[in-house]
Amino acid sequence: MGADHARRIHEVISGARVSAVVDVDAARAEAVAARVGGCPAHTDPAAAMAAADVDAVLIASPGAAHEAALLAALDRDLPVLCEKPLTPDTASALRVLQAEQKLGRRRIQVGFMRRYDTEYIELHRLLRTGRLGRPLLLHHRHRNAASPSGWTSDMLIRDSVAHEADITRWLLDQEITAVTVLRPTPSAHAPDGLQDPQFVILETADGAIADVEIFVNCGFGYQVQAEAVCERGTARVGDGHAMVTHTAGRWGGTIAQDYLERFHAAYDREVQAWVDATRRGETTGPTAWDGYVAAAVCEAGVRSLTEGGRVEVELAERPALYG
Amino acid sequence: MGADHARRIHEVISGARVSAVVDVDAARAEAVAARVGGCPAHTDPAAAMAAADVDAVLIASPGAAHEAALLAALDRDLPVLCEKPLTPDTASALRVLQAEQKLGRRRIQVGFMRRYDTEYIELHRLLRTGRLGRPLLLHHRHRNAASPSGWTSDMLIRDSVAHEADITRWLLDQEITAVTVLRPTPSAHAPDGLQDPQFVILETADGAIADVEIFVNCGFGYQVQAEAVCERGTARVGDGHAMVTHTAGRWGGTIAQDYLERFHAAYDREVQAWVDATRRGETTGPTAWDGYVAAAVCEAGVRSLTEGGRVEVELAERPALYG
Amino acid sequence: MGADHARRIHEVISGARVSAVVDVDAARAEAVAARVGGCPAHTDPAAAMAAADVDAVLIASPGAAHEAALLAALDRDLPVLCEKPLTPDTASALRVLQAEQKLGRRRIQVGFMRRYDTEYIELHRLLRTGRLGRPLLLHHRHRNAASPSGWTSDMLIRDSVAHEADITRWLLDQEITAVTVLRPTPSAHAPDGLQDPQFVILETADGAIADVEIFVNCGFGYQVQAEAVCERGTARVGDGHAMVTHTAGRWGGTIAQDYLERFHAAYDREVQAWVDATRRGETTGPTAWDGYVAAAVCEAGVRSLTEGGRVEVELAERPALYG
Amino acid sequence: MGADHARRIHEVISGARVSAVVDVDAARAEAVAARVGGCPAHTDPAAAMAAADVDAVLIASPGAAHEAALLAALDRDLPVLCEKPLTPDTASALRVLQAEQKLGRRRIQVGFMRRYDTEYIELHRLLRTGRLGRPLLLHHRHRNAASPSGWTSDMLIRDSVAHEADITRWLLDQEITAVTVLRPTPSAHAPDGLQDPQFVILETADGAIADVEIFVNCGFGYQVQAEAVCERGTARVGDGHAMVTHTAGRWGGTIAQDYLERFHAAYDREVQAWVDATRRGETTGPTAWDGYVAAAVCEAGVRSLTEGGRVEVELAERPALYG
Repeated sequence: MGADHARRIHEVISGARVSAVVDVDAARAEAVAARVGGCPAHTDPAAAMAAADVDAVLIASPGAAHEAALLAALDRDLPVLCEKPLTPDTASALRVLQAEQKLGRRRIQVGFMRRYDTEYIELHRLLRTGRLGRPLLLHHRHRNAASPSGWTSDMLIRDSVAHEADITRWLLDQEITAVTVLRPTPSAHAPDGLQDPQFVILETADGAIADVEIFVNCGFGYQVQAEAVCERGTARVGDGHAMVTHTAGRWGGTIAQDYLERFHAAYDREVQAWVDATRRGETTGPTAWDGYVAAAVCEAGVRSLTEGGRVEVELAERPALYG
Repeated sequence: MGADHARRIHEVISGARVSAVVDVDAARAEAVAARVGGCPAHTDPAAAMAAADVDAVLIASPGAAHEAALLAALDRDLPVLCEKPLTPDTASALRVLQAEQKLGRRRIQVGFMRRYDTEYIELHRLLRTGRLGRPLLLHHRHRNAASPSGWTSDMLIRDSVAHEADITRWLLDQEITAVTVLRPTPSAHAPDGLQDPQFVILETADGAIADVEIFVNCGFGYQVQAEAVCERGTARVGDGHAMVTHTAGRWGGTIAQDYLERFHAAYDREVQAWVDATRRGETTGPTAWDGYVAAAVCEAGVRSLTEGGRVEVELAERPALYG
Repeated sequence: MGADHARRIHEVISGARVSAVVDVDAARAEAVAARVGGCPAHTDPAAAMAAADVDAVLIASPGAAHEAALLAALDRDLPVLCEKPLTPDTASALRVLQAEQKLGRRRIQVGFMRRYDTEYIELHRLLRTGRLGRPLLLHHRHRNAASPSGWTSDMLIRDSVAHEADITRWLLDQEITAVTVLRPTPSAHAPDGLQDPQFVILETADGAIADVEIFVNCGFGYQVQAEAVCERGTARVGDGHAMVTHTAGRWGGTIAQDYLERFHAAYDREVQAWVDATRRGETTGPTAWDGYVAAAVCEAGVRSLTEGGRVEVELAERPALYG
Repeated sequence: MGADHARRIHEVISGARVSAVVDVDAARAEAVAARVGGCPAHTDPAAAMAAADVDAVLIASPGAAHEAALLAALDRDLPVLCEKPLTPDTASALRVLQAEQKLGRRRIQVGFMRRYDTEYIELHRLLRTGRLGRPLLLHHRHRNAASPSGWTSDMLIRDSVAHEADITRWLLDQEITAVTVLRPTPSAHAPDGLQDPQFVILETADGAIADVEIFVNCGFGYQVQAEAVCERGTARVGDGHAMVTHTAGRWGGTIAQDYLERFHAAYDREVQAWVDATRRGETTGPTAWDGYVAAAVCEAGVRSLTEGGRVEVELAERPALYG
């Protein structure tokens, strides 16, 4: 992911360049740096951030390393684009929130890249117009062809449903108040012991309900859909298509095979928006608060998954900075 | 509905004619009889069934009148096509089951006409081939433009979700074991006090989960969809289309406005299948047991709606006749 | 085709029964008659028509036999549903027209069954409303999986494009004035010497242009589409769908494999409409004039195919009977 | 268009900046220059090209000014991205070809941006795989909501069909050998005297046929489609969609209203590809030869439009440089 973001900034993004690459594996850092124009390579984030020509930081390390890197960046008042999750749990996320509040202004953009996908943007825009009335229900589908080896049942919540948690809050402009995870009989094609698929119910502050089918061994491809059911109509994204063929008794088209194929343009747009805002001296996009809430919803979800039943989401009070 | 079925038999169906019309309102019975070739009109079902040229009975009266009419027909060993519900509750449904068992052979076909819709048939056939693997999840949407006046919250379960209860059992070939009804904030366009929409979770004997969005004041039309999520793929019906137009900045098509527009061909096929089977001396299609189970699932659903939480479905033992 | 119509009348159609079966092959006539309730079988059409219980005639013999059968039916003043073509050429078609005129009233309905297809009906209705303005262009696609053995290049015009000629006239309510057949390099999958596909341009009296792709060895299925381009919008039929699946990297659905699969309901509706009209003492639907004009357009088309260039359609004056 | 390209290079493109702006209107040149970072503004192209920090030239002036600007750029051996048309006629196009040949290497990329549209790329790729067999027919639709004031009938060929001429050659990898323009009765919504729509037939060297509906006052939006009919299947682009809504009795979505909305990403990709190639010291994409051929096809098309009938396309011999 980090290497892909470095390539993106080097080849696609206007107004930015890669001035340093950091990886705990020095050889890997060197290799990536060589591919993006030969900038310095580091193994220590703090050392890299100390360089004079480093104006902003993109964090794409494993989640467990995020807190330290975020605090280091805030310490230097550097704008950050931090891949999701903000941090792996609410306790560490709260520490990051506090550091940013102490700084007194937003510096962190969290990498919920779906907010930069043209289809979700179109849906968001339509809901904001009010033409469909109030949203009452949201139906999400989130399917992967196959899960990476080593995936555990809670990762379907933490890594996958985290996106739907964020996009539900963003589309509805409401907090999620409770989570229920249902456990259908797993697919025979899921690795032994993996609860896959799961069916997740999210309740929101104003009484809307969002359901999420998460199925990471669906076999046929990568597919992300959302349907908003409102008082005067529905709108659905993620089920569109471009080229249609007719061959051998069938009409239809191909399905994306992974999230990079589906969302590469959203990643481009996300990073470009971050670079543009940074150059204007601003921080926009999903906030550290959004990152914290996603962690809180996922914690509730994992509790529902393991203990059964409906689990309420407990949130800290929302700081004024994220009003 | 009864008048429409009379017209159907008179104008559309091959191999049958309307030989008597029954309605508690004599004038209405006469009027319908006049429109279908001038057969006798009755106000008493038993009197009509006693006529020599009555070979079979189609019941389309209000649900509360079904038990008496069904028992009268069974008493005369007449084949019956009974509009859903079989009867309004499980107690009366069980009495009908007992009467049919005493007769020792099936005589009742229940009017779950979706089983005769070409799209549901296609989906059913595909699931039976096993090509998609085992079904894990079913997503249903059931939307009406507006609810008839006088509708109450439990009627969304009893009259509407009853269809999804039956079609879920038929598609998955499994009994439903528990029902949970969730209550999102109602639409501002729903009549005061009506819980609309509702989101219903059905659990099945083999651990599949079916969710049903029932929304009877969606405003835009009549829409019924089902998506089966299986181990090796998904299949969706109810979202197809025929003519596509491009006008005034929009592409798309029209939505059916009521169930007769959407399902008229299924009704034709249902009644034709009943007539054909009857002429062969057989009774096929949805059984009285299917009618009883639908009542049981709906009773559990209404309890969940009114009391909250998950309610298990309690079924009598399945008689051998319906094996 | 004849056997299928007999089955249709026996099993599907309301208000009619098969009272006689005719085939030059006596054994085949007997076999069909046995399957539809055991009516008399004949080898001579005139003998069959003389029977007292024959009220109407459905002609589904090869085109060359149509003239004699039609004249025999007109002679007895019997209503006829005659499969297309009315007759194989304009000279014989004119003789039939004259016989019907002599009778002084319509007795012949020609089997252009697309006019009974719900999609074409919907398109026709939309064009009649005037909401899209005047139609300017019509784009037709007509594809078969593979041509029957023995097909010759002119049969693509006479047997296939004949449908588009009729439907163009019906949709636009204008006569066709000229035909141009273009000859792209044939498909390697077409039988040797067969000009397949062909691209046909039809010009109409009011200056609209219809193009027809006829491709009878397209390999993938049977597909019939029409797109009307009007002053204020377009409308397309024949490209809709019902069930959508997602499997193995592809989304989509199946394509009909032959015309009976695609148009069986239109055939049912056509024959039912004919039976209903006949019982009311009327003759409706496509007229003998429509059959004659189709023959004239096809003759012009075959000349264009063989000689090249644009060929004008020469029509007799339209008799008042077909005003 | 020029201002939009300047904005694009300034805001979107990676690896390039606007170092000079040229416009015959000095005030306009200044205004654009101010918006893209304050580079120098010129009224004379040659003066701008003489600047030390000008490494490449993007020409977006009216077609009549292209020849002089192209020759000036070739004179300085500067890479050029020239908006279509290369030049307005074949005579001037040939002079440009000669100048580039004299230089001995490609320096000109012509702005046929559809080749950078992801849908056309996908179609092109599919045809190249050979999986559908040889393409036999291409059906193009090209519709604009309304024509700019001052449009004349020949501009439908020169400005609009020019795109289909190029994309047909690119998709089929064959030259176009003849053009026939048919003139349906114009739409009542077209300006007086404008032949709109037109229906254009393109024949290719290997006997494929492409038809083009060009309709620049279709009223409902901007729509560009292409369907390739091959020996083993068809593929269609330009008719896809993203978000689908259900409201007020209709399902569907919105249609792009102009070419920038439809093709903005293709423009981005085209210019990025040009910048990337230029930085590698290469020139890729549509060649000056492609620009010349488009002019030749359009000249034949305009002759067919004005004189009627089929007009053969006469091409100079293809220089080795464009092999």
